[in-house]
Amino acid sequence: MQAAIALALRGRALSSPNPAVGCILVRDGRVIGRGWTLAGGRPHAEAMALDTAGEAAYGATAYVTLEPCAHQSQRGPACADLLIAAGVARVVIGTQDPDPRTNGEGIARLEAAGIAVQSGIAEAAARASLAGFITRQTQRRPFVTLKLATSLDGQIALADGSSQWITGPQARAHTHVERAHHDAILVGGGTMRADAPRLDVRLKGLEARSPRRVLLSRMGDAPTGWTAIASPHDIGSLEGCDWLMVEGGAETAAAFLAIDSVDRLLLYRAPVVIGRGKAALGDIGLEQLSDAHGRWQLEDTRLLGKDRVESYQRIR
Amino acid sequence: MQAAIALALRGRALSSPNPAVGCILVRDGRVIGRGWTLAGGRPHAEAMALDTAGEAAYGATAYVTLEPCAHQSQRGPACADLLIAAGVARVVIGTQDPDPRTNGEGIARLEAAGIAVQSGIAEAAARASLAGFITRQTQRRPFVTLKLATSLDGQIALADGSSQWITGPQARAHTHVERAHHDAILVGGGTMRADAPRLDVRLKGLEARSPRRVLLSRMGDAPTGWTAIASPHDIGSLEGCDWLMVEGGAETAAAFLAIDSVDRLLLYRAPVVIGRGKAALGDIGLEQLSDAHGRWQLEDTRLLGKDRVESYQRIR
Repeated sequence: MQAAIALALRGRALSSPNPAVGCILVRDGRVIGRGWTLAGGRPHAEAMALDTAGEAAYGATAYVTLEPCAHQSQRGPACADLLIAAGVARVVIGTQDPDPRTNGEGIARLEAAGIAVQSGIAEAAARASLAGFITRQTQRRPFVTLKLATSLDGQIALADGSSQWITGPQARAHTHVERAHHDAILVGGGTMRADAPRLDVRLKGLEARSPRRVLLSRMGDAPTGWTAIASPHDIGSLEGCDWLMVEGGAETAAAFLAIDSVDRLLLYRAPVVIGRGKAALGDIGLEQLSDAHGRWQLEDTRLLGKDRVESYQRIR
Repeated sequence: MQAAIALALRGRALSSPNPAVGCILVRDGRVIGRGWTLAGGRPHAEAMALDTAGEAAYGATAYVTLEPCAHQSQRGPACADLLIAAGVARVVIGTQDPDPRTNGEGIARLEAAGIAVQSGIAEAAARASLAGFITRQTQRRPFVTLKLATSLDGQIALADGSSQWITGPQARAHTHVERAHHDAILVGGGTMRADAPRLDVRLKGLEARSPRRVLLSRMGDAPTGWTAIASPHDIGSLEGCDWLMVEGGAETAAAFLAIDSVDRLLLYRAPVVIGRGKAALGDIGLEQLSDAHGRWQLEDTRLLGKDRVESYQRIR
């Protein structure tokens, strides 16, 4: 399942309007097919894996990160039907599909055809890989990552606003990989005017993976090539956006935290001390410390050169 | 040498006016004596180890964290002479003694007596264990640790000043162990008035290890049981204080950073987000970001319950 999840990542932020799924077919202990949702959403992971395996799929086990779809669309047959037709003997599923057109129906159809089905395998990791899709299905908005790059004392700039550079080249390259895994990046009007950020992916071979740029602006007007929204409550209206990265500034970041619409904190910290400068966040409406506890769980941390990156997940 | 350094730690913040040294005697692959500088500075580590070993010390190797002293005092003979008299064959030294009464003289005397001497073994770790003494000898002031306990976004309190509790019980217990390893703890007037901190060691068995309390106050007046100094420049005047921990608040911490008198940052970070509250530091006089780089190096980090502690060393 972990290998299928790794495959799924290849389609992340490319597979819209479909979720980025991974599928591996195994027979007699050998991998006979691999697939992931391609750009634009077709083919589905299962279709690609079955296509690779050909007749060898008969009697095989399919490992798939998301429940195979049960609904036929104009763009292709349902994956549950494809697995049945190929004679797959067993299907191991990461997590059930929350899409109401499938939600358990894919599993039911496989079982009715005599296929052994196990669901909920490595489910936390599978759900994490599908968090954009799941958040969109269940909350009608994208999964939101808030990125902050700070000093050890939590400052994002000197008092005069200078912030180039707090973190080093490895941390900045890591941010660009993160950008490539997002459908859109959002900044506030202050950051837009002060930094005129390009918000693109500056890594060789990944330039085409630059996400859409979104401006949070009460006025609602955006420069060419940008989309504007007037409030953090409006992110659900961003079409084809399952993964949204908020890059600042402090007031914009705080506005998302204040309405509890941040699902993941991505913190880069450099081993520097700034003192009185610009704090990472504005007012998030916290009234007592006890309310701040139990909300964030560390999911990953590593050193990037001299800097440290930490990823915290919102506990819901 | 690492074992000798661990022994030395037993005397830390107790051994004044002498440095906390550790000594291990080994013969034929077996430890035959262990010693560390006891409370009040006597006996010295070497004397204690030789006393344990007795006649077995003849032909042994002594591992000692600091160059054995060469100066006889009213309180006892020079350790170099003791090692020679015991017939030790070899002395392995962590670091040379910067005290001008010894500084190389201990090594010279051992070698003149035909003893094989190696110095500078595990020197960085040995010097770290002796940093209070070395800083006092070379800079005429204690080694200063600045402790901060912050949220992920670098805040030490809500806007209304409430800060109990940001970190959890494991992190607070860790702070109490750190206190026990310091000769004195310093806070500023604001923290003193707002929090009336006890600054004692609240760990069973270690209550007696509570350090002296120092108030940074321009007025120079201190409550009963406290020592007052008027400026961070005056810490050299704190007698018998080789290890000083600065516990806040933000302006006091910044005052020490501004004159570059912080040798170690001890950062506790809780997985909470506060937003606009009280920042960890006031103005430290930083004019450009490039000046902030290359000053701090991570020396240790670990999880304490849900919190993370990090220790950074000033690169000098």
